[in-house]
Amino acid sequence: MAYIKRMIIVALLMLTQATLLKAEDGQALWLRGNSNIKVTVSGPGHSPVVDLAIAELKRGWHGKPDMVLNLRISDNPAIKGDGFQLEESAISARTELGLLYGAYELLRSQYLGSPARRFVSNPSYSRRILNHWDNLDGSIERGYAGRSIFWGEKENGLSITEQDKEKWTAYARANASIGINGSVLNNVNASAKILSKPYLEKVRAIAERLRPYGIKTYLSVNFSSPVLIGKLKKADPLDPQVQQWWKDKVKEIYALIPDFGGFLVKANSEGQPGPQDYGRTHVDGANMMADALEPFGGIVMWRAFVYNPSPEDRTKQAYKEFLPLDGAFRKNVILQVKNGPLDFQPREPFSPLFGGMTKTPVMPEFQITQEYLGGSKQLVFLSTLWEECLNNDTFKNGKGSTVAACTDGSLSKTDFTAIAGVANIGNDVNWTGHTFAQANWYAFGRLAWNNKLESKVIAAEWIKQTFLDSKEKKTDAKFAKTVQGIMMESREAAVDYMMPLGLHHIFAEGHHYGPAPWFSNDKIRADWTSVYYHKADEQGIGFDRTRNGSDAVDQYHEPLSSKLNSLSTCPEIYLLWFHHVPWSYRLKSGNDLWTELCLRYDRGVNKVRSFQKDWDRMDGAIDKERFQEVQSKLRTQSRDAQIWKDACLLYFQQFSKREIPFDIERPVHDLQSLKELTKSRDYN
Amino acid sequence: MAYIKRMIIVALLMLTQATLLKAEDGQALWLRGNSNIKVTVSGPGHSPVVDLAIAELKRGWHGKPDMVLNLRISDNPAIKGDGFQLEESAISARTELGLLYGAYELLRSQYLGSPARRFVSNPSYSRRILNHWDNLDGSIERGYAGRSIFWGEKENGLSITEQDKEKWTAYARANASIGINGSVLNNVNASAKILSKPYLEKVRAIAERLRPYGIKTYLSVNFSSPVLIGKLKKADPLDPQVQQWWKDKVKEIYALIPDFGGFLVKANSEGQPGPQDYGRTHVDGANMMADALEPFGGIVMWRAFVYNPSPEDRTKQAYKEFLPLDGAFRKNVILQVKNGPLDFQPREPFSPLFGGMTKTPVMPEFQITQEYLGGSKQLVFLSTLWEECLNNDTFKNGKGSTVAACTDGSLSKTDFTAIAGVANIGNDVNWTGHTFAQANWYAFGRLAWNNKLESKVIAAEWIKQTFLDSKEKKTDAKFAKTVQGIMMESREAAVDYMMPLGLHHIFAEGHHYGPAPWFSNDKIRADWTSVYYHKADEQGIGFDRTRNGSDAVDQYHEPLSSKLNSLSTCPEIYLLWFHHVPWSYRLKSGNDLWTELCLRYDRGVNKVRSFQKDWDRMDGAIDKERFQEVQSKLRTQSRDAQIWKDACLLYFQQFSKREIPFDIERPVHDLQSLKELTKSRDYN
Repeated sequence: MAYIKRMIIVALLMLTQATLLKAEDGQALWLRGNSNIKVTVSGPGHSPVVDLAIAELKRGWHGKPDMVLNLRISDNPAIKGDGFQLEESAISARTELGLLYGAYELLRSQYLGSPARRFVSNPSYSRRILNHWDNLDGSIERGYAGRSIFWGEKENGLSITEQDKEKWTAYARANASIGINGSVLNNVNASAKILSKPYLEKVRAIAERLRPYGIKTYLSVNFSSPVLIGKLKKADPLDPQVQQWWKDKVKEIYALIPDFGGFLVKANSEGQPGPQDYGRTHVDGANMMADALEPFGGIVMWRAFVYNPSPEDRTKQAYKEFLPLDGAFRKNVILQVKNGPLDFQPREPFSPLFGGMTKTPVMPEFQITQEYLGGSKQLVFLSTLWEECLNNDTFKNGKGSTVAACTDGSLSKTDFTAIAGVANIGNDVNWTGHTFAQANWYAFGRLAWNNKLESKVIAAEWIKQTFLDSKEKKTDAKFAKTVQGIMMESREAAVDYMMPLGLHHIFAEGHHYGPAPWFSNDKIRADWTSVYYHKADEQGIGFDRTRNGSDAVDQYHEPLSSKLNSLSTCPEIYLLWFHHVPWSYRLKSGNDLWTELCLRYDRGVNKVRSFQKDWDRMDGAIDKERFQEVQSKLRTQSRDAQIWKDACLLYFQQFSKREIPFDIERPVHDLQSLKELTKSRDYN
Repeated sequence: MAYIKRMIIVALLMLTQATLLKAEDGQALWLRGNSNIKVTVSGPGHSPVVDLAIAELKRGWHGKPDMVLNLRISDNPAIKGDGFQLEESAISARTELGLLYGAYELLRSQYLGSPARRFVSNPSYSRRILNHWDNLDGSIERGYAGRSIFWGEKENGLSITEQDKEKWTAYARANASIGINGSVLNNVNASAKILSKPYLEKVRAIAERLRPYGIKTYLSVNFSSPVLIGKLKKADPLDPQVQQWWKDKVKEIYALIPDFGGFLVKANSEGQPGPQDYGRTHVDGANMMADALEPFGGIVMWRAFVYNPSPEDRTKQAYKEFLPLDGAFRKNVILQVKNGPLDFQPREPFSPLFGGMTKTPVMPEFQITQEYLGGSKQLVFLSTLWEECLNNDTFKNGKGSTVAACTDGSLSKTDFTAIAGVANIGNDVNWTGHTFAQANWYAFGRLAWNNKLESKVIAAEWIKQTFLDSKEKKTDAKFAKTVQGIMMESREAAVDYMMPLGLHHIFAEGHHYGPAPWFSNDKIRADWTSVYYHKADEQGIGFDRTRNGSDAVDQYHEPLSSKLNSLSTCPEIYLLWFHHVPWSYRLKSGNDLWTELCLRYDRGVNKVRSFQKDWDRMDGAIDKERFQEVQSKLRTQSRDAQIWKDACLLYFQQFSKREIPFDIERPVHDLQSLKELTKSRDYN
């Protein structure tokens, strides 16, 4: 107990320091709201969590001076889980964590200048989890903000410094402030070593820092762990020895980390081992782990991101593989499904698994780190992408069966619900590389708490907390509005300059930053090339997934499947995802497909230029440091948008054999030089 | 004689071949007018030159079929030098070369579709000379079109192949077709070796190929040659041994090349040796050589491009050094003066030496090779630059004393007149790298023949001959007009995106392609840095050359000097050349200086983009090969114009501390990255 108290003191010290020194280097994230306004807070006795809530309220109070605020545990049936109720002078919650979340919400509303009002807020998902694709050597797969904050370079990643611990506390606090309550600490392409004693000891140390903030620790596990670090000859999930190995391992984990959350598993996907290696199913594998975890309250998040080198359309494979298994999983297993059926593209239709699984709970996996959306070089606010996904209607139980409803327990009750976001966090001073990438971390947390929140609201919240003072300066309203405009248009701009009209996965091999629609390679599987996806030829462009083609449309419920199937009713934003469309096809704009494609690419480039203009006009409205950082990155984004436009138009023009409309700006690169550039340049 | 006949036959064979095989790779230049229309030509007996004239007329006749054309030698006093008179069915000239020039003019007018009319055409300058900055190892200083056509890589540059000879003939023919009658075969930064026996033998071989086309051969000589290849201890021009050495050397040359033209000398300039090394003057040096050449009719072209590391404004130095020497040179010496007082910048005022020298003849030196105007990457038609220079009024003998009049003998008679152009020719298939660089070669020749020709006429002539058929296709008029528009605006565009409003020499060190306004280096002389020239500071920008400054204005005659001296009357195109102007100064546009500077850079970039649009619209109007080559180069030019704009605006903004007007496109580079880029990238 003394130990925990010491932890709390260090944590409180931390949160005071964080915003005092070098305040505007981005390190403080959206938590810049230190205040001198006095408040008296009474809590329901003392506990690490309650004490944290009180400390936060005192530190960031922007309400009436000298108020008395009461924190109380309540059995109000309107409050669910770790939800809370805010009142004029009280926060009520069923749990201590609820009080902490209520405290953050109250402080936020004060800072944002929203008048305090009585309302209840309950989380949409019970588990709101960050997935860190951090390798044990400190590198981060698809990370663009430095190295891992968990796994250092020294002592095989096992060293722990005071700075590390402070970082973990600051990380936990930031997450708690937006409602995140779980962290998977290592890459889904998991090293088996993570389950070995020394690494589990380190996990314990991390978990101790996360615990006061209500963050549960999870681990990605390698299915072959019993072979790789145990002494077993195989990892067959039906083998009693294997089952026992996992039971023993889980027991060992819980002895170290009593509130351990569970396992995240990528099995039989992209070369990872899995139950199919032994002729077993995903069910066999997941259930074995679930059985081991169940006694301790742990869960298994089994990833549905599976596809094999087969003639079948890659986007159909996960659905085909998992649908027959529906209902066969243990109750503490949940299927973790990427928002789209492919892989975190700038725009995808939602995954049919959301509407497909009826008995097995499904959790959305969003990608916060911008693997396909510009790394930490480009300003792309992803909240609109996630909002779009959550609001998509699956028609699972008729109209209104949104992806949100399919996953948050509204449509059918499940023991628990969950949502995951692949983190964009590294040891860069500002955590995320691009200042605006902080907004994606923030938005994920906010949407995980409330999946009906509008992106424009999230953006406004984030802008004010991140850049502006509680008390508004003259220029603040203009800044807030301008930047909100940029953020709200940013993802659509990226779609335009990268992959408009339903194009997908025409990225350069490997780095997934720049364009390579030409990418084709006989030596690798077709579905790892670009030409597999766009299928451009002299007739037209696009992947025929209609009933005449791969019939992916029929993985969706009616009336959506027929709507997608028909060229005339398919939404144009998904046009080339579902149809191979003739170059001469007239779109709703009246333009033929080729012309429209050109105009979209051009629009995307010009959009980024308009972001530059908007941003530059804000010179002086905020601190120089972040202003210039963003200005510089927008310049890069502008150049790189032009590279995208030129590469795609010049490449596709070889098939369309049509002129780029003469009234738009001409390419400024040659195709050949772009092929070299995207290969050679440091693009990731 | 048999030998010369064989030469002629080879030459005739060449000119037939040149346009038959791979016609549109640019090799045929503006000489694409082969024809099957029959004509009978009678000449005044036979000679190599007359036979060539007849052969050319038969090959390229686009006049009435089966006509009889008469070539005749005439003593018509209206015809001067190698001029000619065209009539319905005759060409008259005082010289055989006049007949050849008349033949080319007739063919050109036929091809261009201008009706034949009676007129006399006399050359503006008696010596119309290309300067090749070719080194004996085959490299070319400031060459952007491959390696030397004169000096090969093998056998110390001395090898001669059949291909070489054919190239020399094709080169001579192209020059003769536009009236050029002299070639300096080696770099002004001359190797003394050129005067050694083996090299002179090669010069003889080259001269034999040039002679039938009326091209005289000249050489650049190293002032220290008596020391470097002779056995003398010094090269003092007053030393009788030295004088004798030169006399002997000249005699040796004329024994090999009876029509040798003379020497070009860069002395005491940029590290080259000269008479000042021995306490002598330019007069002493030039006259010594002149005395050696005089008996054979040779001339000395003494370059006035001299400047020393001194506190004196570099642009004033040549004038100060040469004016006191006016009248002291021998009659066969001419001063070769670059168009501007600095060094071939995108825009300079004219050199005050043109109006300054009253007794010593002066010849203009133009730079055809685009050292400071985009190498062979950028489309910049230089004719307008030269036209601007020639038309500048020096006020030497009152109003109307243009640079043209000061140099072509109109103002005061001299024994001979001359004009030089630094060639842009290399062994690239299309001779000049950029197809449009051919136009600069062409324009130099045409202006050297007629210094009153308008650039727009020269452009039209060149476009038709270079790209179009004699018989017009439907699209031809549009192409011609569009491309003429591009050409006529191209130099002003380059001024805008490189150095508007009189800025000068802010190029990257060494390559002179990209921008480096930041270039400053304490270890080299100040006048080799950029900051020396723009002098940007928090108050303003520009070089004060007024009477309060370096007083360069007073090297010009009144009323020009006072006009330039006053900020309110100085033409804005020369503003920052002559004035250090406050950032807030209002220009005629109503904009302050900083704003106007931004708008000019932006206008330049947009101009190149409009060239791209214009060119792209011409797809199909000409051969694919050259269309695509130009298209690709315009793309590069567009990117590089943006680099210029960004580099200069971001750099100067550090001093102006003003915002780039928000309604223009924002920079897409950072200053620091541009510093790296222009240093590291292959820019020349």
